Amino acid sequence: MTATREGGRRAAVVDTSRSPHACLRPLPLEAVRFDDVFWTPRLRTVRAMTLPSQYEQCERTGRIDNFRRAAGKKQVPFQGRYYNDSDVYKWLEAASFALAHDSGSAGAEAQAWLRRTVEAVIDEIAAAQSPDGYLNTYFTFERAAERFTNLTQMHELYCAGHLIQAAVAHHRATGERRLLQVATRLADHICATFGPQARLGTDGHEEIELALVELYRETGNRTYLDRAGFFLDMRGRQPPMLNGSVYLQDHLPVRAQREIVGHAVRATYLACGMADVYAETGEAALLEALEALWQSAFERKVYVTGGLGARWSGESFGDDYELPNERAYAETCAAIGGVMWNWRMLLCCGEARFADWLETALYNGVLAGLSLDGARYFYQNPLADRGRHRRRDWFETACCPPNVARLLMSLPGYCYSISDDELWVHLYVAGHVRAALPAAGTVSLRIETAYPWEGLIHCVIEEAPEVAASLVLRVPGWSAGAMSVRLNGKHTEAPVTAGGYVALRSHWRTGDEVELELPMPVRRLVAHPHVLADTGRVALARGPLVYCVEGADHPHVDVWDLELPDDAPVVAERRPDLLSGVVALVGEAVAAPAGAWDSQLYLPTGQQPPIPRQPTPLRAIPYYAWANREPGPMAVWLRRI
Amino acid sequence: MTATREGGRRAAVVDTSRSPHACLRPLPLEAVRFDDVFWTPRLRTVRAMTLPSQYEQCERTGRIDNFRRAAGKKQVPFQGRYYNDSDVYKWLEAASFALAHDSGSAGAEAQAWLRRTVEAVIDEIAAAQSPDGYLNTYFTFERAAERFTNLTQMHELYCAGHLIQAAVAHHRATGERRLLQVATRLADHICATFGPQARLGTDGHEEIELALVELYRETGNRTYLDRAGFFLDMRGRQPPMLNGSVYLQDHLPVRAQREIVGHAVRATYLACGMADVYAETGEAALLEALEALWQSAFERKVYVTGGLGARWSGESFGDDYELPNERAYAETCAAIGGVMWNWRMLLCCGEARFADWLETALYNGVLAGLSLDGARYFYQNPLADRGRHRRRDWFETACCPPNVARLLMSLPGYCYSISDDELWVHLYVAGHVRAALPAAGTVSLRIETAYPWEGLIHCVIEEAPEVAASLVLRVPGWSAGAMSVRLNGKHTEAPVTAGGYVALRSHWRTGDEVELELPMPVRRLVAHPHVLADTGRVALARGPLVYCVEGADHPHVDVWDLELPDDAPVVAERRPDLLSGVVALVGEAVAAPAGAWDSQLYLPTGQQPPIPRQPTPLRAIPYYAWANREPGPMAVWLRRI
Repeated sequence: MTATREGGRRAAVVDTSRSPHACLRPLPLEAVRFDDVFWTPRLRTVRAMTLPSQYEQCERTGRIDNFRRAAGKKQVPFQGRYYNDSDVYKWLEAASFALAHDSGSAGAEAQAWLRRTVEAVIDEIAAAQSPDGYLNTYFTFERAAERFTNLTQMHELYCAGHLIQAAVAHHRATGERRLLQVATRLADHICATFGPQARLGTDGHEEIELALVELYRETGNRTYLDRAGFFLDMRGRQPPMLNGSVYLQDHLPVRAQREIVGHAVRATYLACGMADVYAETGEAALLEALEALWQSAFERKVYVTGGLGARWSGESFGDDYELPNERAYAETCAAIGGVMWNWRMLLCCGEARFADWLETALYNGVLAGLSLDGARYFYQNPLADRGRHRRRDWFETACCPPNVARLLMSLPGYCYSISDDELWVHLYVAGHVRAALPAAGTVSLRIETAYPWEGLIHCVIEEAPEVAASLVLRVPGWSAGAMSVRLNGKHTEAPVTAGGYVALRSHWRTGDEVELELPMPVRRLVAHPHVLADTGRVALARGPLVYCVEGADHPHVDVWDLELPDDAPVVAERRPDLLSGVVALVGEAVAAPAGAWDSQLYLPTGQQPPIPRQPTPLRAIPYYAWANREPGPMAVWLRRI
Repeated sequence: MTATREGGRRAAVVDTSRSPHACLRPLPLEAVRFDDVFWTPRLRTVRAMTLPSQYEQCERTGRIDNFRRAAGKKQVPFQGRYYNDSDVYKWLEAASFALAHDSGSAGAEAQAWLRRTVEAVIDEIAAAQSPDGYLNTYFTFERAAERFTNLTQMHELYCAGHLIQAAVAHHRATGERRLLQVATRLADHICATFGPQARLGTDGHEEIELALVELYRETGNRTYLDRAGFFLDMRGRQPPMLNGSVYLQDHLPVRAQREIVGHAVRATYLACGMADVYAETGEAALLEALEALWQSAFERKVYVTGGLGARWSGESFGDDYELPNERAYAETCAAIGGVMWNWRMLLCCGEARFADWLETALYNGVLAGLSLDGARYFYQNPLADRGRHRRRDWFETACCPPNVARLLMSLPGYCYSISDDELWVHLYVAGHVRAALPAAGTVSLRIETAYPWEGLIHCVIEEAPEVAASLVLRVPGWSAGAMSVRLNGKHTEAPVTAGGYVALRSHWRTGDEVELELPMPVRRLVAHPHVLADTGRVALARGPLVYCVEGADHPHVDVWDLELPDDAPVVAERRPDLLSGVVALVGEAVAAPAGAWDSQLYLPTGQQPPIPRQPTPLRAIPYYAWANREPGPMAVWLRRI
């Protein structure tokens, strides 16, 4: 029943181990252990609170009953939206990752509950599968005849993709094949139904592409890779007069796309699929499109928090520099999609700019999606608010909650990667990693750090590889030019590569110590002048964290009335008592209460009412922590004076 | 066939002549003649181009065939959207107003074509009516059984309201009763179907309320007024757990509403209906709600152009101060709804603040909706753009084009009103007005002015009333404190009333001259500090016009890179050659090309790239005239330095 996979478990997140065109290979979750002041308690909360409560939500809302219904076990109507299966699959993926490692473990009892529940959910899923392999609980009984008749609207391939991802994660985490067999039967059904010699069709919500590549990696069945490519090729084939949908990236062939447009989650998932196919095929035209799309997204359309998708309308990307703050959509899922995409770009290309935005999104745009208590979620993540926007414990369309869970439960998999004789460190989390470098032997590394609160990364070689190897440390973009490296206590010249890493090559000995010092001054960020929403405003950041001001810390002034002089000192302040422990930024700002404007909305410059300006204490908190206290106004971007 | 109404025609726009709780009575269009440099050519264009081309669009798109189909004259499928009847009705209302007056006449031949076409369209409409009075071409034949089964979605009462408005306008304009009879039969059917003792129901798109009040005014049948009140009362009656729709203002009883929310056109039309009912009933709770809603709209949610409805999502109002520029929705119809609402508030209360926003919307947010050639339309009216947003010659949902037409064709009706012994002037348009003041006799006034380009209003009494009477002149908010009045050439002290007017009481003699001087300096407007989108920005205005900068006038600099120093002189410049003749604003700004930012989206303050700043000529054009030349960037709000 719980037979362990031959050769041990290996729960990699995007397994490019044998991908010929990826320059980095991931490490499995099991190779990484967190012992971290920031992440360990958070992952414990996800295990103890988020995963169980999401399972309960899936039961309460009929999402699992839908499988029981499809299997004939329960005579109830289908409940909820036609894409609700995907939430169960994403929960299962998160739970599978949680089974793979014990970082932040909630204890043996909780792990046993999780294992039992995962098995039980797999039972329900397996029983709901049609004999021909088809599986979608919405298209059963009276709707069975409608299967695959409305590919662009009905999310069947999207749900299938999430089942495949869950199955791959479950197989990697546990070595068990049962869910993988369900997924391969469905994938085989899809591959038999669609293809160059079979039916054509554009999937409405990308996801199947990246899933099929991962299934190819897991099974070796090249048909899955071919069909992933096929589904990419299907996009943008409408005759021009029919105007293929920009919303679902069907307006142009993927290789001709240069601007990231449409529904933001769809767009990032498509980019993931493109990158996954590229990693296997090395097709230059795909990488060229990916690079242009990445620049479009991360040089012109991303929020300072890593949030993606400015528009509520269509949950979509806006135009270049269209980044409103109070009406940012910035769906949690889109920030996660950005993490997934950047991770794939990083594996393919090994450049720190991808890790930079991955990290920014993780610590800000994604993490804000989950309450500190692990039980409530943001769907949208505005950068300014009047106190109305609050997390909710579930949604009718509940894509974001399990998406956060699966990302955080797989986080150890995003921290490191390897090449033949290199160990790369992308994210700095205190703990331990052990990796077999193919051309150098096993290396084991302990990392001590108080990151993201402090910038000192202390690395100790606990097991040295047999021959010379490189420790490749990411230099975050925000610290470029200021970082320093000490080797066994001595300063060492360590040039930053074009890709943004420091590569330390040595014949390491056990006990060798490397210290990377990333100075963490408070940064005052300004935006490109064409970001109309940020004109005359400044945002505070420190390390990977973007900060905001919140009403709860400013009882006597509306934070929308704060002005920050360029020369006002702002310093970091450790506050273990605040918001589960943060480093706050404190200083003196100016309160400029707008009350004197009264009922006036527009006034000539000469007739502006006198605003009494007076110094007022400023306290900024990490953006991820906002809206965990009483409701009140919030702002990331302050008026700059 | 063309029997003239007994007692002469009287095409008033909102006829409060006998409304007990309105303090002002409108003048019919026929009482007003335009001879105006600004409006006369525009109205001529609407007659010569807009009305005929809209009729052609209605034919081309099957909107009129839908009536022929319903009448059994044509066997064709229903074409277009289920609310398409309303476009024909709004066109008919516009055409009816055009028959009432000859301001900007396009000549006898065009007028004859219009008269014939109006008659022919009425033929089609009348023939499509069911024997029981029901009339909606979508709900015919196979859909007849669905009549009034989905009141919140299917716009049947909305279409009915527009038919009633068209019929009232046609009857007032021509004295003919044929269309009015069609409308009353439909209204009778609605009143028999719905009511406190019949069916209940909330209309999804308000319009029936204001229409029924006008039909009551036109026919004297009090049932129509009662049902208008009934439809108001229907809103907000969902039990709290059902969450009545904010989108269609069904979240609270109308008398409990204090914030303007939801779909902006719906919200303004609802307010019109509330004001119309108030004018008849004097119910204090309605006026109290109206005042709060008005403050919400015009003190916290209106664009500087008079545009309403910030959000694309739901075409709806945003939160207080949520006024993004490049993604302003600001639907042309909503600006028109704002004009209609302010006109009703003005008639009820006689305060210039209502006329101020009416005028601002008219000259900016509404007029931008129509191209200078009269044949293309904006649906949305952003306040900043990169050159992609262009007017189109029609829309699948074509509410805006005929809405602009009916407003402009009825414009003479918005300029004046009367009370017992007062002639009020709200909008300054050169021409002539003749009005019978009930307690003072007939007054005839000639106005000479180059408004909105110049602020001198020269009034000549051409026919003096028999006894003392008041000439009540609006003092626009932007000129308060600076205006002056001359009576027969001599300066006179003329205090501005609390309501924002100058009331000149005199026993007038023929030949008396009044000059109102409204200085028109260039105004630099700033927005309330909570309008995040306008931080650090300034907008230029002069008189009632808001200005913008456009790429066509700045070939060597991206207008999004312009900075306007507070001390840079900006002056008015007459440009009869430009954009059908405008007063442009010219001065010297600073070009600060953002190109040096290259691919950076966010930078620390210390690392901003050096931006080469250099003086550059500035030319601003009236906002209404933008996008009439080659595409390029546009901005209303400039960076202020």
